[in-house]
Amino acid sequence: MLEPLFQYIDDHQNQFVQRLKEWVAIKSDSGDHTKWGEVETMLNMAAERIKKMGGKVELADAGTHQLPSGETVLLPPVILAEFAKDPKKATLCIYGHVDVQPAKMEDGWATDPFNLTEIKGNLYGRGATDNKGPVLAWLHAVESYQATKKEIPVNIKLIIEGLEEVGSYGLFKLIKKRRDSFFADVDFIVISDNVWATTTPALTYGTRGSSYFFVEIEGPKLDLHSGVYGGSIQEPMADLIALLGSLLDHTGKIQVVGVSDDVTPLTEDERKLYDNISFDLEEMKNVVGVKHFLQDTKEEVLMARWRYPSLSIHGVEGAFSDPGSKTIIPRKVTGKFSIRQVPNMDPPDVERKVKEHLEQVFSTLNSPNRLKVTATVGAKPWVANLQDSQYVAGQKAVKDVFGVEPEFIREGSTIPIAQTFQEETGKSVMMLPISGHDDGEHSQNEKISRYNYIEGTKLFAAYFYELSLLH
Amino acid sequence: MLEPLFQYIDDHQNQFVQRLKEWVAIKSDSGDHTKWGEVETMLNMAAERIKKMGGKVELADAGTHQLPSGETVLLPPVILAEFAKDPKKATLCIYGHVDVQPAKMEDGWATDPFNLTEIKGNLYGRGATDNKGPVLAWLHAVESYQATKKEIPVNIKLIIEGLEEVGSYGLFKLIKKRRDSFFADVDFIVISDNVWATTTPALTYGTRGSSYFFVEIEGPKLDLHSGVYGGSIQEPMADLIALLGSLLDHTGKIQVVGVSDDVTPLTEDERKLYDNISFDLEEMKNVVGVKHFLQDTKEEVLMARWRYPSLSIHGVEGAFSDPGSKTIIPRKVTGKFSIRQVPNMDPPDVERKVKEHLEQVFSTLNSPNRLKVTATVGAKPWVANLQDSQYVAGQKAVKDVFGVEPEFIREGSTIPIAQTFQEETGKSVMMLPISGHDDGEHSQNEKISRYNYIEGTKLFAAYFYELSLLH
Repeated sequence: MLEPLFQYIDDHQNQFVQRLKEWVAIKSDSGDHTKWGEVETMLNMAAERIKKMGGKVELADAGTHQLPSGETVLLPPVILAEFAKDPKKATLCIYGHVDVQPAKMEDGWATDPFNLTEIKGNLYGRGATDNKGPVLAWLHAVESYQATKKEIPVNIKLIIEGLEEVGSYGLFKLIKKRRDSFFADVDFIVISDNVWATTTPALTYGTRGSSYFFVEIEGPKLDLHSGVYGGSIQEPMADLIALLGSLLDHTGKIQVVGVSDDVTPLTEDERKLYDNISFDLEEMKNVVGVKHFLQDTKEEVLMARWRYPSLSIHGVEGAFSDPGSKTIIPRKVTGKFSIRQVPNMDPPDVERKVKEHLEQVFSTLNSPNRLKVTATVGAKPWVANLQDSQYVAGQKAVKDVFGVEPEFIREGSTIPIAQTFQEETGKSVMMLPISGHDDGEHSQNEKISRYNYIEGTKLFAAYFYELSLLH
Repeated sequence: MLEPLFQYIDDHQNQFVQRLKEWVAIKSDSGDHTKWGEVETMLNMAAERIKKMGGKVELADAGTHQLPSGETVLLPPVILAEFAKDPKKATLCIYGHVDVQPAKMEDGWATDPFNLTEIKGNLYGRGATDNKGPVLAWLHAVESYQATKKEIPVNIKLIIEGLEEVGSYGLFKLIKKRRDSFFADVDFIVISDNVWATTTPALTYGTRGSSYFFVEIEGPKLDLHSGVYGGSIQEPMADLIALLGSLLDHTGKIQVVGVSDDVTPLTEDERKLYDNISFDLEEMKNVVGVKHFLQDTKEEVLMARWRYPSLSIHGVEGAFSDPGSKTIIPRKVTGKFSIRQVPNMDPPDVERKVKEHLEQVFSTLNSPNRLKVTATVGAKPWVANLQDSQYVAGQKAVKDVFGVEPEFIREGSTIPIAQTFQEETGKSVMMLPISGHDDGEHSQNEKISRYNYIEGTKLFAAYFYELSLLH
């Protein structure tokens, strides 16, 4: 069944690379709203491709957005598309985005970031792996069925946006609005917008959530000279250091009472998932450049990054941060830290506990200064059920294409999209990456290998088939 | 004896203000070495004035200085001057400087900083109080003797530099070099380059020294994403917070073992000096904008600022310090703090104890990161003997001019010049301020009041006389 599809994909790989080259050439950097015209050009190009394949496309209004300047701007539309529908088949909705991170030669690119360039089997260019390559791979997987005159075994819907890199403005509202229309008949949602953990193909079943905290201590009405006033002032910076120092112990354990209470206990089945991951601890020490991690074994390190919460102190605003020496007593300082959260932690509950903790510690300082703690909640943590048809189908598709068992992995970082889809639509959600762990998304010299791009296209084609068998 | 001098000074006050206006008009900002030409112009102008008064002037070579860029630049000269010498008289050497801090209208000046402007008895302009006004006051005190045909009762020498605001490059070497020539016959050195503590005239008998510490923690070889790595990495920022948090308790007491051991015990005589200081604790709370100081009484607050050591944490370099949120794990962070020191603390000894303390605390963190502690020693603390003739003469001169007892005060900040003169020349040193406590040296709208400028000139004239009586 799958062989002719794979053959078609192999035979047309140069054409698929050429299409990616055309897409990469569009500078759809969403970082600067004055350049959203390029994002719209890219969305239109994607819409045209889908239409050519027989898809029905709506360029859905995503509303407006208020900039930090106060100015309100119109958002680029979101593509909502679908191919011919058969009510007997399951319906799969594919999410992707066609905007990119900024890129400039002078940032240290070896090749023009907007001219896809193949070197030793790697396709270098901004958006090659994040996320233009995977979006095209989905379309080419559909094409492989159409061109070989095979019925696509699932109904395909697509939701493609152009503002993922700046936080998907308008998208979540749109999802909510279309829950009972566009999403009503959707059974599964699949996202391919992350990377494998190693060189082995992976299925991603969880992401950490996060909250970002601002601890502001305000003291004197002006910055003071430490020679003149030092010794008589309870300095805001000293208060802040005491507060920040109360958050963690030196093993990385969060000291905020109760904050880790809701962490889902590790089951034996889950523990076993870690045995198969081909993560090389020694190699990772070299890559990162540390003598040791906080944990001793591969499994413990991965769990610390993926399935346990963590707290990182990012910096201090308002204190002296330039090179050199300056003998200032800063009047107002703001410490910044974030807590990565895992199921079943609840960000508002974490926020409340952190505030209580900081207020309690502050009360012991007998300080004349003022404490203000604020938090921005990034996203809730997400974890999928591995018994779900999507994961079973994904596992089989990996075996079909690569001949190996996938690694079941999580992302330690926050990718709000999976959790949002799951929460807003109530559908099953899977993350099915085809990008390599060394693709450098967001970095200079972003790439996707020809191997991952083409075998990834096969993976998607096989996935449609395997999913249809289970439904 | 003093009346005719005072009369002359009163009669010529408009001329003295005019001369200050001419000096303020020279933009002798020493902060930018490309503008040291203006500093030289100012030094030449001062030299011409001294010559006109019959003084002998040497523009002494101050050598060269290496800029942070590596470039070596020639330093402006230092004025070494003297008036006619009588071996029977004591010799007083006066120190001053004619360079200024930067000043621009757009920083918030109400008047042009380089156009001395009188408003309600205050003379606004950069350098009015720091230090062109006092330098001219010394010259006008000499002039008052010459013009009234009175013998100057002490031999007068002058050392006037143009780089005080950037750290007196070359000066200390020059002092050492001329110890056995220019300074050989000097009995007393007097400095008027600080301010009164209140509205009462003051004699300053001590300054705190300081050491500036850099605590560098270096970890991974690159900045890391806190989502991807958070929980597995012993973060440099967490190590740094633990180290900085070990330095102080919340009462401001330094926690470094032994660091305060050498603080001179408070004597009853010294304690009594604080009773007379007209410092208003409530007013100071309002000025600074704090609900309370670390101490409860006026005496305790002043002692904390003047005669006890203090530790201030100034900031962190290398961490996230901009507004907004960024989820970075910084790879290398440098905490910065300084310790103000008092007699008989010894900066190298303090440095050794601080390093030992930080290394000891760091060893408890079991960290894979690297700690490096470096220190720059600013200056040793200084305290004068109040039984010294200069202080007795100064006290009498204050009574002659102002009819009150002076306040005996210290400076909490580091003014290396007094300690350096005392150490390098072995002479008695006094600081005799004429500037008001609200003159705003280094700030926008720097000023000296006409009252302080003119009565200060009288104070200097009276001081020459009183000193000669005691010799």
